[in-house]
This record gives sequence, C-alpha cells and structure tokens, in this order.
Amino acid sequence: MSEQASAVRVIGLWPSPFVIRVLIALKLKGVEYEFVEEVGKKSELLLRSNPVHKKIPVLLHHGKPISESLVIVQYIDEAWSSAAPAILPADPYTRAVHRFWAQYIDDKLPPAIRTLRGSDDGDKEQAAGQLSGALKLLEAAFVELSQGKSYFGGDTVGYLDIALGSHIGWVKAVEKIAGVALLDEAKVPNLAAWAGRLCAHPAVADSIPNADKFVEFSVKYGSFSKPINSGAK
Amino acid sequence: MSEQASAVRVIGLWPSPFVIRVLIALKLKGVEYEFVEEVGKKSELLLRSNPVHKKIPVLLHHGKPISESLVIVQYIDEAWSSAAPAILPADPYTRAVHRFWAQYIDDKLPPAIRTLRGSDDGDKEQAAGQLSGALKLLEAAFVELSQGKSYFGGDTVGYLDIALGSHIGWVKAVEKIAGVALLDEAKVPNLAAWAGRLCAHPAVADSIPNADKFVEFSVKYGSFSKPINSGAK
Repeated sequence: MSEQASAVRVIGLWPSPFVIRVLIALKLKGVEYEFVEEVGKKSELLLRSNPVHKKIPVLLHHGKPISESLVIVQYIDEAWSSAAPAILPADPYTRAVHRFWAQYIDDKLPPAIRTLRGSDDGDKEQAAGQLSGALKLLEAAFVELSQGKSYFGGDTVGYLDIALGSHIGWVKAVEKIAGVALLDEAKVPNLAAWAGRLCAHPAVADSIPNADKFVEFSVKYGSFSKPINSGAK
Repeated sequence: MSEQASAVRVIGLWPSPFVIRVLIALKLKGVEYEFVEEVGKKSELLLRSNPVHKKIPVLLHHGKPISESLVIVQYIDEAWSSAAPAILPADPYTRAVHRFWAQYIDDKLPPAIRTLRGSDDGDKEQAAGQLSGALKLLEAAFVELSQGKSYFGGDTVGYLDIALGSHIGWVKAVEKIAGVALLDEAKVPNLAAWAGRLCAHPAVADSIPNADKFVEFSVKYGSFSKPINSGAK
C-alpha cells in the first residue's frame, strides 16, 4: 500500500459487470476514488483484501476491504447516506422487492451470458431462451416498480438499476456475438428504453463501455477470468 | 385466502433452514405469525405468492409477499425497526461484513450438506472437507465479530447468527448421517460453544429441532424437496 493511499480505492477491471456496479454507485454519490487495475497474476493487494474469494471487485475504504458487489453497493449507500440520491428505496417492502430482483439477476444472467459469450460450455440456444425469459420478467418488474418514471428507483438511479444496468454491456455484446435479439425494443420495450436512458446517465455513461469493446475483449480473451484473472462476483 | 388472514403469515416447512431463518427473526422481534405449512403439491397460495421461484419460505405481511430468506430477514428488521433487538449491526462496515459472510454461508453450506445427506450426488469426503473448511473460516469470523461476546451480533442474536444458526440442525444431522465431526469442540471450539448458546436462546430453541428429527426426516424422504416439495432458498 502506498503511503498516500486514497481514502477510497476500487480493485477491479473494466469488463466486469460486478466492478461496474461499484463504480456507478460511487459516481452516483459523488465519491472520489482511485481505480486499482487488477490485470494478470492476482495482486498481493487483492489476495490480502479478499482472502476468501480472491475476486474483484474489492472496495477499500480507509484501507478496510469490502467484497461482493451487491454488499459493496449497499455499503456505499449506507456509508455515504447523507449524499443524494439514496440507492436503496426508503420503504422496507420496496427495498425487499429490489433485493429480491437483484438476487434473481445474479442467479440468472451471468451463467447465460457466459454461455452465449462462449466462455462457458453449454447450449447457446437454451441460454438465449433463459436470458430472454429473465429479461421479460424484469420488464414486468420495471413497469411495476418504476410506475411510469425513468428508473427502477423512480426518478433516480437505484439499487436495481445498478444491479441490472451493470450487465447491459455484456447483454448487448452477446447479442452481437451470438446473433440473438435480447434487450430489444420489440421484445422488452420498456427495458430497452430504460437501458438507453441509464447508459446516458452521467454516473453510468463512463462506466459501461460500448458493446463493441466487450465483443473485442471477448474475442481476444474468451473469458475475462482467463488469462486476465478477474473472475468476479 | 381466509377472510380473517393473519397480518403476518409464513409459508414454509420445518426442516428448511431458510424457513427457520424467518421464524427466528420474527420471534426475536416478538412478531406474532401464522405458520402455513407447505406439504405435498405446491399450494395455490405459494404459486401466487412466489411465482418466480415457487419456493418456500414466503413471508406475507398484510397479504404482500416477500421471498428469499435473507431478503425476508432484512425486511423484518426494517419493517419492525423499533422492536429490539436490531438484527443488522448499526455500523455500515460491520453490516457489510455480516452480509458478506451470510452470502458465503449460502454459497458453501447448502451444497455440501445436501451431498452429505445423500439428497445430492457428489463426493461425500470432499463435501465434508468443504464444510469443515467453511466452518473454520466462520470460527475465525466469529472470534473477530463477537469480540468476546456471545453472538456474531455481540450481546444479541444478529443477522449472521440467524444466517448460520439456521443450518445448525442439518450440520449436526449430517454429522450423524455421514459419521463426520464438523461443528465440533476440538475443531471449532468457539463456534461449537456459540451453537450451544444459540440453540438455547428463547427465540431459537423452538425453531431448530433436534438433530435426530432431521436425521429421521432425511432417512424417510431422502431429499426434503421431494416428495415434499419444499426446495427452498
């Protein structure tokens, strides 16, 4: 650790949707951070900061490490609770609904995306069907939760916007890689419009690169957990 | 739904560790509830309340359904925030550490327990090693978090006590079924003592049946997700 380490550091790598979540949350709250790029052999800092999983992202706040992307996002919301916007909804029931869908996203999307990218074995057609089905359920959840407003969080970007939004880059990339329509106006019109709005949001725009960059990365490395070791959660 | 439905209902079945979490949280907060036993064919109420996963537990609060056990426990803490004790720690960093370990528990314990019970295929010796390794990490986490007090939550039963405590019954049952020592004084002395204290706690005692009852159940049904359909999360 340098003697002049920043108060907030993120250990990560740009193509990881789990890292993207942390960056969006910090930008939303207006928190300055240092990005510590984790490329190649796992760094001493990563191994020391997340000895259990040895995975990115890790948030270091005054040197104290926090792992697991959704845990980090909730931590950011709570540690900078006075900075608007609130990431979690205020109402306990709505919070529970957001948490339910965030867990659903992490259960369903990453495995299907890995298969469609070709970094995991599996039936690509089946994976496309699963991803498509999940996005349809999330379209319905969006209509219910947003109540005609811009985001899952209403007028502001919230927990579920971050949880799902972090996957937009890869979803659009696998549309190109596998030649399937997923986040598509004809299939999930509300979600497609939401994705467009979210990607243009100032806290999000810089964090989610263009789909082509993901495609290029995928072609180059196959899986971003090898040879660049950033298997993440 | 009956016209006189209780304000708080839990759809569940006793051997599910995920159901046990909900019951402990409600008892801790002193919330009266009606237990709706889910046996045999999936009930209309379950299918309507958790259409996405169709799994127990579901908490119904004034008819509004919440699924996923850790989401429910956090909901209970937030919806009855004025009832002592607080389940989540107050400090954001400690909350994050609790959430990290709760997720670790759900990633590592249930698959190993299912293999040791024989309800999932897999190498039993390997599963015992994984479970034992996980408990050793949790022993170290306990020493760090409890700081010489009785529980992960300090003086009171907290989030991580519930997340891990809900598995004690099955861990002790698979010790008998598979003939291995796991939650053992010689191996994890602090955790073994913690488990004893927790199981004697008034909010917990009735919710975690004796290991023999789990063994008997396991012998009778093999997996509690079939024929009694309560595959749960």
